[in-house]
Amino acid sequence: MNQFGTNFRLAVWGESHGPQIGVTIDGVSPGIPLSEADFAEDLARRRSGAPGTTPRREADAPQIVSGVYEGYTTGAPLTVEFTNADTRSQDYAALKTHYRPSHADLTAVRKFGGFNDPRGGGHFSGRITLGLVAAGVVAKKMLGERVRFSTQIVEIGGCTDPARFDDLLRETAAAKDSVGGIVECRAEGVMPALGEPFFDSTESLIAHLLFSVPAVKGVEFGSGFAAARMRGSEHNDPIVDASGLTATNHAGGIVGGLTNGNPLVVRAAVKPTASIAREQMTYNLATDRMEPLEIRGRHDVCIALRAAVVVEAAVAIALEDLLLRCRA
Amino acid sequence: MNQFGTNFRLAVWGESHGPQIGVTIDGVSPGIPLSEADFAEDLARRRSGAPGTTPRREADAPQIVSGVYEGYTTGAPLTVEFTNADTRSQDYAALKTHYRPSHADLTAVRKFGGFNDPRGGGHFSGRITLGLVAAGVVAKKMLGERVRFSTQIVEIGGCTDPARFDDLLRETAAAKDSVGGIVECRAEGVMPALGEPFFDSTESLIAHLLFSVPAVKGVEFGSGFAAARMRGSEHNDPIVDASGLTATNHAGGIVGGLTNGNPLVVRAAVKPTASIAREQMTYNLATDRMEPLEIRGRHDVCIALRAAVVVEAAVAIALEDLLLRCRA
Amino acid sequence: MNQFGTNFRLAVWGESHGPQIGVTIDGVSPGIPLSEADFAEDLARRRSGAPGTTPRREADAPQIVSGVYEGYTTGAPLTVEFTNADTRSQDYAALKTHYRPSHADLTAVRKFGGFNDPRGGGHFSGRITLGLVAAGVVAKKMLGERVRFSTQIVEIGGCTDPARFDDLLRETAAAKDSVGGIVECRAEGVMPALGEPFFDSTESLIAHLLFSVPAVKGVEFGSGFAAARMRGSEHNDPIVDASGLTATNHAGGIVGGLTNGNPLVVRAAVKPTASIAREQMTYNLATDRMEPLEIRGRHDVCIALRAAVVVEAAVAIALEDLLLRCRA
Amino acid sequence: MNQFGTNFRLAVWGESHGPQIGVTIDGVSPGIPLSEADFAEDLARRRSGAPGTTPRREADAPQIVSGVYEGYTTGAPLTVEFTNADTRSQDYAALKTHYRPSHADLTAVRKFGGFNDPRGGGHFSGRITLGLVAAGVVAKKMLGERVRFSTQIVEIGGCTDPARFDDLLRETAAAKDSVGGIVECRAEGVMPALGEPFFDSTESLIAHLLFSVPAVKGVEFGSGFAAARMRGSEHNDPIVDASGLTATNHAGGIVGGLTNGNPLVVRAAVKPTASIAREQMTYNLATDRMEPLEIRGRHDVCIALRAAVVVEAAVAIALEDLLLRCRA
Repeated sequence: MNQFGTNFRLAVWGESHGPQIGVTIDGVSPGIPLSEADFAEDLARRRSGAPGTTPRREADAPQIVSGVYEGYTTGAPLTVEFTNADTRSQDYAALKTHYRPSHADLTAVRKFGGFNDPRGGGHFSGRITLGLVAAGVVAKKMLGERVRFSTQIVEIGGCTDPARFDDLLRETAAAKDSVGGIVECRAEGVMPALGEPFFDSTESLIAHLLFSVPAVKGVEFGSGFAAARMRGSEHNDPIVDASGLTATNHAGGIVGGLTNGNPLVVRAAVKPTASIAREQMTYNLATDRMEPLEIRGRHDVCIALRAAVVVEAAVAIALEDLLLRCRA
Repeated sequence: MNQFGTNFRLAVWGESHGPQIGVTIDGVSPGIPLSEADFAEDLARRRSGAPGTTPRREADAPQIVSGVYEGYTTGAPLTVEFTNADTRSQDYAALKTHYRPSHADLTAVRKFGGFNDPRGGGHFSGRITLGLVAAGVVAKKMLGERVRFSTQIVEIGGCTDPARFDDLLRETAAAKDSVGGIVECRAEGVMPALGEPFFDSTESLIAHLLFSVPAVKGVEFGSGFAAARMRGSEHNDPIVDASGLTATNHAGGIVGGLTNGNPLVVRAAVKPTASIAREQMTYNLATDRMEPLEIRGRHDVCIALRAAVVVEAAVAIALEDLLLRCRA
Repeated sequence: MNQFGTNFRLAVWGESHGPQIGVTIDGVSPGIPLSEADFAEDLARRRSGAPGTTPRREADAPQIVSGVYEGYTTGAPLTVEFTNADTRSQDYAALKTHYRPSHADLTAVRKFGGFNDPRGGGHFSGRITLGLVAAGVVAKKMLGERVRFSTQIVEIGGCTDPARFDDLLRETAAAKDSVGGIVECRAEGVMPALGEPFFDSTESLIAHLLFSVPAVKGVEFGSGFAAARMRGSEHNDPIVDASGLTATNHAGGIVGGLTNGNPLVVRAAVKPTASIAREQMTYNLATDRMEPLEIRGRHDVCIALRAAVVVEAAVAIALEDLLLRCRA
Repeated sequence: MNQFGTNFRLAVWGESHGPQIGVTIDGVSPGIPLSEADFAEDLARRRSGAPGTTPRREADAPQIVSGVYEGYTTGAPLTVEFTNADTRSQDYAALKTHYRPSHADLTAVRKFGGFNDPRGGGHFSGRITLGLVAAGVVAKKMLGERVRFSTQIVEIGGCTDPARFDDLLRETAAAKDSVGGIVECRAEGVMPALGEPFFDSTESLIAHLLFSVPAVKGVEFGSGFAAARMRGSEHNDPIVDASGLTATNHAGGIVGGLTNGNPLVVRAAVKPTASIAREQMTYNLATDRMEPLEIRGRHDVCIALRAAVVVEAAVAIALEDLLLRCRA
C-alpha cells in the first residue's frame, strides 16, 4: 500500500504524467514554521539539470494545501502537491506491447489487468519520490538542527574518484548508455536508543523506505557487506565512554537495531537507469517474439545522482517516526 | 513494535532466558494440515551443533497452543511457543556495567531505563528468531510447493569456497575470534506481480524483516551492489517471452518493486558474532574507564551459519503477506 | 491519525476554510469505470439546501487527480479533491478566546498548542466528511450492485413521523436552536462471513468510522440498546435455512462480529448541531469568566439530515475493507 | 485481524477449549512494578460465580511469560497466558450441523471452511476477553492513579433498580432463559486533548474495542441516543472555566473526538446470552429443516454481569493508546 509509518505517516499518490503528484504527512507537530520556500533547497538537489540527468524540466513548485495556517504547521495532516507540466505522453505509446527490459511494464500490466497508467511509468515513476523529498524536509525540521546530514554520491559505475564523475557521465551518454552508482548518507547527532528490536529496527525502517525508491537494489549500514568479510576482533567497536562513543564505527551507528549515538552511516546501491537510448532486444507481445526496441523519452544517464536527496529524506523520515514512538 | 505484516501478521515475544519464546501468526488460511513435526526440519537448520555454532543446546521443541484443531489450521491466530531450558544466567552478571563492544547493552539500558532483561541479550537475543523460523514454515506451506527455496552460506569471512569453510571456522575458534558471512536465498516459482510500488515493494518487505534479524548489516537483490558498478546495457534483463522470462536475472526477480516471475535472489550480509572469547578493551561504567573484558557464555563463531533458515523464513513471510494482499 | 483501513485504506486531509479538502484511497481495484460524475448523486445528498441545513453553499465539485486513467481506475492510489470556495473566515475571529459550548475550540487549542486552524472548525469540520462520501462511492462500486443500501433519517428531535419533520425543523430554526436525529442504514445483499472476531468485527469497523464523524454520539446494530432489555428467547433469531436466513433479524445481520447474510442494520445517533444562533453563556479566556456568546456563521439546524449519506459511506467502506481481507 | 492499537498494541489468541488463552501487549513502558497478583482483582470481577453467571469454573490464574524481569516491566512485549482447565467439549458435538440461533456457528463454518474449532465457540468465545482484562490492568497502571474508573451494570432486562437485579436473574434462570443489560463506565481524571479528529477519535477507539466484545450491540457516549432527541440549547455543555470544566456533561467528556477533561461516560448495550436452556427451533443441516434444539453446556443467564470489567478494560486500553500517541 502507498502509506508508510506509525507516528509520522506518509501517503503518496500521483502519476508521472497525471495532473499532479502529492504527499500527505500525518503526525506533524504543531507550531513548526513552514512555507513553500522551505522545500526549495532539497527539491533543487533532486531536480534534473546537471550532466547525467534527464532533459525533462519540471518546476517542482510545491503547494501546501493543508496543515499550515498563518505560516505554522497546525498538527492536522500536511499535504504538499506538485503540478506535472512538462509531459510528453506520446513517447510511451509504443511500449504498450513492446516491454522495456528491467522495467515493470509487463508485470504492471499483469498486476493491474492492463489498467495501469503507462505514461512515464505512471505511479511507478521516480517522480513519486518528490513526495518523499517533501516529507524529508518536514522530518528534518522536526528532528531539529542537532541532527546533521551529509549525503553524497561516493561511486559511479565503479569509479570512486569524484573528479572523474563528469567525464564518465559524458562517455556514458555518448554511448547511449546509463550507469549505476552508490549514495552514502551520514547523519550525525542522532539521538541514541531509537529503534525497536523486533521488527522495527532502525535499519528495518530505513531499508523499507529505501527499497521503495525505484532503482535501489542494495542497502548496507556501517561496514555492511564488508563486515561479512571481517573477524569479530576487527569489526567490534570498542566503547570509549559513558555516552557510548566508540573508537571505530563499523556498526554505522546502529547496534541491536538501536541507534547508539555514533554517526549513522547508510549506503544505497542504485542500478543504472533501465531506460537507455541504445537499441535493445526484448519481447514484443504484438509479434510474439523478441525485437529491437529503441526507447524514446528523456532519461537520466545516472539516476543515482538525483537519488541522493531521496536517500537522505528516507533516513530522516525513519528517524522521526522512531523518535515519535520513543517519546511515546 | 514487535509486530509485522498486513494480511499475514506476526507478533513475537520472549526473552533469551525467560520461561518461553513465542510467535502469534494472524492471517493463516484455515484447513492447512499442521503439527509440531512440520517445524522440525527448519528448526534443525537453525539449531546449533555444527562446527562454528554455540555449545548452548536447546531442544527447540515447538508447542502449538492455538489456531490448530484436529490437525488443521482453523483460521484463528496460530501461536507457537518454545520453552527455554539450557540457560546459564550467571554468565551475564558482570556485563551490567562493563558494556560489550558492538552489543546493545549500553543502548538498551538507556532505552529501557535499565529495566531490560540483560540475561542472554533478553529480547534482543537471536533466540527470538525461533518465532520467525516457525512463521516461515507456515508461510511456506501457504505459498505451496510451487515456490521452491534454496538457501545457503555463499561466503564466510571473505572465503567463497565451501570446501574451506570448516577449516576457516576452526581456525577462527582457535583464535578465540568470530567471523562474518553472506547468506543467499533463491526462491523459484514465485508468483509474478507481488509487491506494491510505494512503499511496500517486495524488496522493502523482505529487507524490513531481514534487518530485524540480529547481525544483518546489508541486504541486496539480484546484482545488488554490483549493479551500481554496471552499465544499463549490461545490467538490463532482456524479456524473452510473454511469461516475462528474462535472458539474464540481474534484477533478482524484482522490477519496479514487483516480482516478475524469474527467480527471486536476495543476499544478506551477516556481521561476525559480537561476542568473542578473546579479551577486548571497552568502557566500564563502574570504573569510568576502558578496561579489558573477557566475555564468558557460549557463542557462535559464525552466526551466519544459523541465519540461513531465518533469511529463508523472512523471504517466505514477506511473499505470503504480499500474496494475500494481491488476492485481496 | 487521519488514516483508516487495512486493504481499503483512506487518508483524509484539509481544513474547512483552507484551499481544498481531499481524500486518498488505497486498495482500489483496477478497471472500475469512474469519473467525476459518479460522485454527483451522493454529494448532492450531503449538500446543504434543504430546510434545516446551512446556507453555506459549496459546489462540492470533485476533481480526480490520481488513480484514474482513460476513464478507469488504475489500481494506484485514487485521490479526489474539493475546492473550498464559499468561506467567510471573519465569522470566527471572536471565538479565539470565547469558547463555544460543545465544540472542540478549547480542547483543540490545548492539543495543538494554539496552532490549529480555527476557521470553520479547521480540520475538525464536518466538511472533512466530503472525503468519506467520495470514498463511499468508490466502495459501493467495488461492492457491486448486489449490495443495496437504504439510508434515512428515522427520527428528528424525538419525532419519528417524517411527515412532521419539516414543521419541526422550521420551529427549531425560528427558535434559533438546533435539534438531533437518528440515521438508519440498511444494507441488503451483504456477503456473509465478513468480519474478524477480534478485534475487527464488522461492528467494530463500522462504529470506528461512524464515531469519527462529527456529532455522532451513539451507534447500535439490529435491536441495539433495545436488545439489552430483551430475553434471549425473544432476541434470538431462529435460522430458517442453509443460507443462514433468519426468521427475525434482531442481530442486524451480524453475529459473532461476522455478517450472516441477513440485512445489515445500523443506527447512528447524531447530537443537535452545537452551533446555535441563540445566545449562550460560556467561558471567555479574555475576561476569565462566563459571558454570553452569540455564534455568527451559517449552521445546520439538524446536521443529522446531511449525515445520512456519510453513515452509508462508512458502512460501505468498512464492508469493502473486510471483503478485501476476506478474499485475501 | 486479532491485533489492536498503534502505540499500545494487543494481540490476542486462543480458543475456549484449547490448552491456553493469551495476550501479548506491545508498547508497555519499562519500569512498572507488575506481578501475577496485580491481575487478581479485575479477573475476579470477570469470573463467574455470582447469580446469573455460568457454573463453568476457571481459576483464570495469569502467567506472565515475557516482558517482566525482577518484578518490573522491561519494555519488551508483555505476554500473559491463562490455562483452560474446566472444559467439557463433548457438550458441543451436536452443534456441528444444528446451528444455534444468534451464534456464529453457521457463519464461522462458512468463513473458515468448516475448520474452525467449534468447542465452546472456539476463538469466538467470550473467554478471549480474559486477554482484554489483563491488558486493561496494564493500561490502568500506565494511566496512573489520576484516572479513576467506576463501572457498573445500570440496567438488566429493562430494570434499572439494582435491588431487583437478583430476583430478575433468578426468575430468568428458572424460565431457562437469558437477559440483556447495560454497562456504564465512567472515567474521571482523564487527561484532556486525547484523541485524533479523523479517524481515531476517542469514541472511535473505545467503540472499536467494545464492539469486538461478544454480545455488545450498542455503544453510546454521554447522552448518546438521548442526545438525538434533544435541542442544542438543552444539549450544549456551557464551559465554566479555563480548565474546560462544563456545567453539564451531555458530551460524556468528549468533544470533536477529543477528551475535554470532564468525566468520560460510555455505555454498552449487551444482548441476552444467545445460549439458553430452553428449547429453540432452528435449522439442522443434517435434515435440511428447522428442528427443536436444546443447548447443553453451561452458560451465563446475563453475560452483561461479567462484561463490566471488560468494558472498563477497553476504555483504559483506548485511552492509553491515545495517550502514548499524544506524548509522541
